[in-house]
Parts: sequence; C-alpha cells; structure tokens
Amino acid sequence: MLALLNADPPRLARDQPEPKRAAGEALLSLRLAGVCDTDVQLSRGYLGYRGVLGHEFVADVVAADGPRWVGRRVVADINAGCGECTDCLSRDGHHCARRSVLGIVARDGALAERFVVPERCLVEVPADVSDERAVFAEPLAAALHVLDVVPPDFSHEAIVLGDGKLGLLVAFALRSAGLATLVVGHHPEKLALARAAGARTLEERELAPESLQSPLVVEATGSERGVALALTLTAPRGTLVLKTTVAARYELDLAPVVIHELRVVGSRCGDLGRAVAALRDGLDPTPLIAARFPLERADEALRHASTRGVLKVLVEHRGPAEVTCPS
Amino acid sequence: MLALLNADPPRLARDQPEPKRAAGEALLSLRLAGVCDTDVQLSRGYLGYRGVLGHEFVADVVAADGPRWVGRRVVADINAGCGECTDCLSRDGHHCARRSVLGIVARDGALAERFVVPERCLVEVPADVSDERAVFAEPLAAALHVLDVVPPDFSHEAIVLGDGKLGLLVAFALRSAGLATLVVGHHPEKLALARAAGARTLEERELAPESLQSPLVVEATGSERGVALALTLTAPRGTLVLKTTVAARYELDLAPVVIHELRVVGSRCGDLGRAVAALRDGLDPTPLIAARFPLERADEALRHASTRGVLKVLVEHRGPAEVTCPS
Repeated sequence: MLALLNADPPRLARDQPEPKRAAGEALLSLRLAGVCDTDVQLSRGYLGYRGVLGHEFVADVVAADGPRWVGRRVVADINAGCGECTDCLSRDGHHCARRSVLGIVARDGALAERFVVPERCLVEVPADVSDERAVFAEPLAAALHVLDVVPPDFSHEAIVLGDGKLGLLVAFALRSAGLATLVVGHHPEKLALARAAGARTLEERELAPESLQSPLVVEATGSERGVALALTLTAPRGTLVLKTTVAARYELDLAPVVIHELRVVGSRCGDLGRAVAALRDGLDPTPLIAARFPLERADEALRHASTRGVLKVLVEHRGPAEVTCPS
Repeated sequence: MLALLNADPPRLARDQPEPKRAAGEALLSLRLAGVCDTDVQLSRGYLGYRGVLGHEFVADVVAADGPRWVGRRVVADINAGCGECTDCLSRDGHHCARRSVLGIVARDGALAERFVVPERCLVEVPADVSDERAVFAEPLAAALHVLDVVPPDFSHEAIVLGDGKLGLLVAFALRSAGLATLVVGHHPEKLALARAAGARTLEERELAPESLQSPLVVEATGSERGVALALTLTAPRGTLVLKTTVAARYELDLAPVVIHELRVVGSRCGDLGRAVAALRDGLDPTPLIAARFPLERADEALRHASTRGVLKVLVEHRGPAEVTCPS
C-alpha cells in the first residue's frame, strides 16, 4: 500500500506492507490527513523516529474487535498508553513511559492507505462535522489543552505569540472558550484569520517593549526569539504556555522567571472528545487549509508543508474504502 | 556611620550619611545581618544596584511613627510596594512595579549601623527566637515560599538539587512541612546537615541517569548544568521550582518541558511572618552558620561569602569583642 515513510530522506513507499491489527486495535482507512510541523521536524531527525509519518487524520474503521466501531468515521488520541501504569489508570496515559504515539513514537502513522490505532483511542465524528473540520481534531485538542493549564481568567486578555497554524488554532480555542485574546504575529493575512474568530491582533513590529503584559501568554512560534519575547509579555506570577516542540537548544535568561515568579508550562496533546465537541459546536478551523494533495503525492505535501509560512497542508485518500465503508 | 557600599568595587564606607526616616518608615539599628549569594551577585554587577548592600537581618527599632514598634526586635519583608497598585492591594506587593527592595533595588540595605524600612514591612521577633535564628527569617521565608507553588504532596518525595545555603534551607522548609525530601549535592558535610533535618541525601555522582524522578523538584544550584539536570529529575506534569537568580544566560533544551508537560516556576521572596513562626516552632537554621564578622569588617565578610562552598556568613553590629571570625 501507499505510505509516507520517514526514512532518510522521507519517501513515498508504494510497497509498504499492510498493517497488522492486534487484539484491541482498529484497522483504519484514511480519509483525510493533515501535515503538522512536528512531521516536518521528524523528517529532519527530531526524536529519531523511523516509520510511517502522520498523526492528524479522519478515517473510516475497517475492522475492530468491537462491532460498534466498524464503518464509523473516527479521529483518535494519538497517545496509546500501556493501560496498566499509574499514568494510564489515574490520568490520560499521555505520559505513560511505555506509550506509543501515532506516527511519532513506535507506531506507524496515518499518512498511509491504512493504519491501526487502539480502539480505546477512537473518537467518533458526528455526521454534521465534515472531514475538512474533523482532520483538525488532533491539533485542535492540543490547542484547547491550553485551557487545562490555568483556570480561565475572563478579566484579562490572553496573548498568543505566533500567527502560524498552531498560534491561530490556539486563538480559535481560547476564543471558543470566551476568552479575550490578542494574537501577535508577522503576517497581515494570517492575523486577519484570527480577527475573523474574534481575536484582537497586533503586528509584532507594533509592539512597544514592556508596554503590554498578560497573566496568560501562549508561545506558538517555537523560536528562541519568540520564547524570549514571550517571557517579557508574561505578567508577574503569570503563566507562559510553551506549545511547540523543536529539536533546538535555546539560550535564555532565566532570571526574569525567578524575579517575576513566572510559571512556564509545557503543553502537548489534549482531549479529542473535547475537540470534536468544539467542532460540532461550530468552531471552524478550515480557513487554515492552504493546500490539498492526494496520498500519491504525500511526499510533495510534506515538502510543501515545510515551506516557511504555509498553513495547513492536507493529504487525501480517495480509495476503495469510500466504496465499502458507509459513514 | 559604617556601611558596606556596593560601589565598584564594593567597599566599607566609614562616613556613610545617616539614613533619613520618612513618614511611615522605621529607623532600625542592626543586630545581625546575613550575606546572601544575591549580595555576591550584586557586587559583580547584577541588576546594576548601587547603594548599601544587605537584606537579611535582625535589628532593633530606634524610631518609628507607631510607638508600639520602638524598642522592638524585628525582621522585615524586603519588598516595599507602593501600597496603591493592584499587586499591593490584592496580593503581597512583591511584584509592585514601583517597589523598592532592601539592599537590592532603590533602597539602602541592612549592612550598615542603621537603615530604614517601611513600618508595614516589619515583623516582630518573639523573645524565644535568638538573633542567630532570626537573621535567617528572610531566606527561610523564601525557602518556605516553595510550598506556595503547588499544594503539598505527601505521597512523593520532593527533590532538592543543591546542598548550598539555599538548598539546605529549602530542605529544612520542606521537612518542617512534613514532606519527604531528598537532597542531591556534592558535599558530604553539607548533606549531613540535611540528614540531621530528616532529609534523605544522595551525592550527585551516585545518581543514575533517569533512575529517579519526582513531581516536585527544587533547583538550588543556579548553574546551567543544575537546571538541565533538574529538568530530567522532574516527573511528567511535575513542577520544577527555580529558586536562584543569577545574571547568566542558559543554553537549554526546552523540548522536554513540552513533551513531559513540566511546570517550571520561579519562586522568590516569601512571607516573613510564616518564617518567624517556623523558627519559633523549632526550625533551626543555625547549623548553616559558617563565619561571623563585625560590621567593621563587612567587606571581608562579603569576600569570604564569595568563596565557593562557604555556607552562611553573618555580620554583627554589637561589639568586636563578642564576635568570632576566621583568622
């Protein structure tokens, strides 16, 4: 089958073996996948992952142990914990030491005709949520997870630093929770998307030093400069949420973290059920779609997504599954 | 009068003008002061402070607006806020933008015969708390402030990284709250002080990589290497408290903060009343005392405190005959 393999360099495999479904797993047939900046990082060696890329998807269930799943249109939590450890039993298993992560750690990903995911990770997509919205469920869940870091504060405007895919999704997420939100970026056309979602926007060059601070700042640029700026935008005893994982060492002055008693909090994956609910309730991330490629050109899609400034690149699989799987 | 001035280089002034007490301020006469690593950093240019050094002290009130204070033995919150802003009115004023900080920002410090502090910052020292204990009230308040970062978790052992003055005080503070505590350091004789306070200890060279993690880690080395190690010691979704302010840029890999969703929280000054209560209840920091100098030799005291590995250096203003110091 077709699959985008993270070899060195990444390549489109036409002879990738069919995935083998283990007990408790569901075999999925891809409908639509998204390319994430993490995929781009992985293709450059981040985490040393080798295997099929892809962790943002909407797909049809082809086979599963539980008959209720077969034929359903689904998204999934990409973290598959062992199901037995304290993290799995008492939390969400996102930090299970033995977890696999779809297309990132020890589990082939979704940029393929077919792939397998543990049944317990599946979340059904309601009929009134289109594939184009549903494919955003995973990154939107991560964006909404910012709301788990601190209790929502409706008396102050949150600041999102960065107007890329992630920054805009975080802005959509904060706005969907009713939080006043300021997006600081570089690109007028992207900032316009944030404004359309009800956010205030500012170009970074308009930012007067030390003129603006918020108790909640979300860093979504992933750059050393962004992190340093975000630290100055965070009010004393405020929270800076780091949302981007990059394989880079930053040179940072930590004295302000201590002097201003800042909380710098890393935030990764979120709750897929919450994301699907937000999509059903009208949150519309589709303005972020920049391009669509067929799975046969997934390698081109990855290259296109690697281009600086490009928003969400989607990869579509129009295959036999469409014929055999009702939704 | 005598005062230790943070000029370039720091020097003992014998002709320092007497401080002028403004309305609402108390004029204090020094009994005993402590030299802090921050004083050493300030003497090397940190924060650009110029003025009398010293912010750890116990002193007698010589004059004040409020008659109840005159003659009392006191310690004080070193942060003097404006008293009018949101931070002063709704919190403790420790982040008031117009605050002075004794011996650190815009207010002459305690390494002098006499100095002034706002009356509202004073905390009386009970008769059964000796000068030698009371002089630790300020750094102990900062150490106890770690307990404000996260609710105490009695099911896990907290890790304190660093066996210097600050690390040991933090260990004493955590132990006084009943928390199981592991101190990781380099110095058997200092680790013995932690054990005497009921902490478990480990020499850093005994630490097997990735063998040990805790949901609460306190970084008290102030070194780049210490911060990097502390990040690896912090369990997923755990909290790393940064306690040291140094004028240095760290090269750090922030990916683990995001992947493991860590909370990196800066922690500075604490509640002096709580510290005095802990001292009264039996917390004994005096094993940390390494040397005592008369105020006439405060410049030597600062140099001695700058020596790597030296614990708490005290400076006494009472009478040269009563003091002991290294030859």
